[in-house]
Amino acid sequence: MSLDAQYIQAAADRTMIADLLGRYAFAIDYETADPAAWAALFTPDGCFEIPVMKVVVEGRAELTEFAAGLQRTIPGLHHVMSNFYVDVDGDRARGRCELNEFLLRPEGIHSNLMGWYDDEYRRDGPRWLFHVRRVMVPRDASRVVTGGVIGEYFAEYLAFCKRYRRD
Amino acid sequence: MSLDAQYIQAAADRTMIADLLGRYAFAIDYETADPAAWAALFTPDGCFEIPVMKVVVEGRAELTEFAAGLQRTIPGLHHVMSNFYVDVDGDRARGRCELNEFLLRPEGIHSNLMGWYDDEYRRDGPRWLFHVRRVMVPRDASRVVTGGVIGEYFAEYLAFCKRYRRD
Amino acid sequence: MSLDAQYIQAAADRTMIADLLGRYAFAIDYETADPAAWAALFTPDGCFEIPVMKVVVEGRAELTEFAAGLQRTIPGLHHVMSNFYVDVDGDRARGRCELNEFLLRPEGIHSNLMGWYDDEYRRDGPRWLFHVRRVMVPRDASRVVTGGVIGEYFAEYLAFCKRYRRD
Repeated sequence: MSLDAQYIQAAADRTMIADLLGRYAFAIDYETADPAAWAALFTPDGCFEIPVMKVVVEGRAELTEFAAGLQRTIPGLHHVMSNFYVDVDGDRARGRCELNEFLLRPEGIHSNLMGWYDDEYRRDGPRWLFHVRRVMVPRDASRVVTGGVIGEYFAEYLAFCKRYRRD
Repeated sequence: MSLDAQYIQAAADRTMIADLLGRYAFAIDYETADPAAWAALFTPDGCFEIPVMKVVVEGRAELTEFAAGLQRTIPGLHHVMSNFYVDVDGDRARGRCELNEFLLRPEGIHSNLMGWYDDEYRRDGPRWLFHVRRVMVPRDASRVVTGGVIGEYFAEYLAFCKRYRRD
Repeated sequence: MSLDAQYIQAAADRTMIADLLGRYAFAIDYETADPAAWAALFTPDGCFEIPVMKVVVEGRAELTEFAAGLQRTIPGLHHVMSNFYVDVDGDRARGRCELNEFLLRPEGIHSNLMGWYDDEYRRDGPRWLFHVRRVMVPRDASRVVTGGVIGEYFAEYLAFCKRYRRD
């Protein structure tokens, strides 16, 4: 059996980028969260963006600060990523995955957001890093996260995000 | 270090089929949905089936029409796939993944369906396509999707599906 | 194009372990569940542990019995795994994935648990097995699963688990 090197390489890259997604979740969720570890998953000039809120967080110092603020303002927020696909071009790649957020509170688990990530990745030796991660939020999802009991839980975080707004 | 070609090939095939699942979701969900792109993920004679409703949608023209009908009758429906495994046999493969559907509405996110896909895949050059995708729906899940507020949201879609019923 | 054998091997191992996770879910969930098949995904001396409850289930006979008890006491329980990452070291690996449990009942789908698995895997020829799987449960998640309607559904299972408690 002979292997098609291009096919094997493309599959391996997909897998290693999926591995990055898993590390991303554990670095921002649960008791396992670690703001500096989360920031280290981005390239040094990497960006985390929420276009619907004009939020841009750039560079590891700002990313670390942002992750710490997220943890402080919405403890118990979990990011479930699924439906990942990616197009690899050498040391660069563009991919997408679905995002379902769940908020753990003593009284129950709330399904608080549904959207997706538009990502750009860069190869960094045997691993991959985020160059840009954009959170895409459908209009109805914005309503859910700002209304009712979920809106109350998210009010402080949404106010915190305004520090990173770039008009 | 020497590679076991059979093991490496099997892993690469699994990854490329998982990539197909991701493309499937984005072609049917969100604002990114595209009925013709969804149909193109099936072989030309491919089938989408819902055995519990005796629904069979066959060939790309019908698949495109079906996806457009799904979008029209239940906007905001999202397909979260997880727990994927597959057995590959040359250019053919059989796999399964779990399906959790979530319905995004301005008032909240509903967990509307839980089931799984029984799939048959075919290799098509460097990518894979669906040959048959069967939606498996446990009995209690049928009750959830036809009852209460979720049942109201799904009524038009369930009526639309009757066009594809084959007794 | 020449392949980096270490990178390709690492990616293939990740993929084959992810495949194990998928098989795990189908062996414990749905109508497809099979207690002996679930136990066979562990090494002969493998352990399933729930540290917060001091539960330790060890060896395939006990694992089979435990899985059968889970099915009997909470039918309709589904395990959605996501955000998987792993560090491979030869024939051993340690990994984590997120766990979201959903409970299917005729009246609706309940989001009943959120936590994660801390896993140890062992290579077994062309496949991988669980050596230890630990269910990690945040404090607020324990409250959700023991309170309200979800607590009622889980009461019998939680009592059953006491047989496997090791103080």
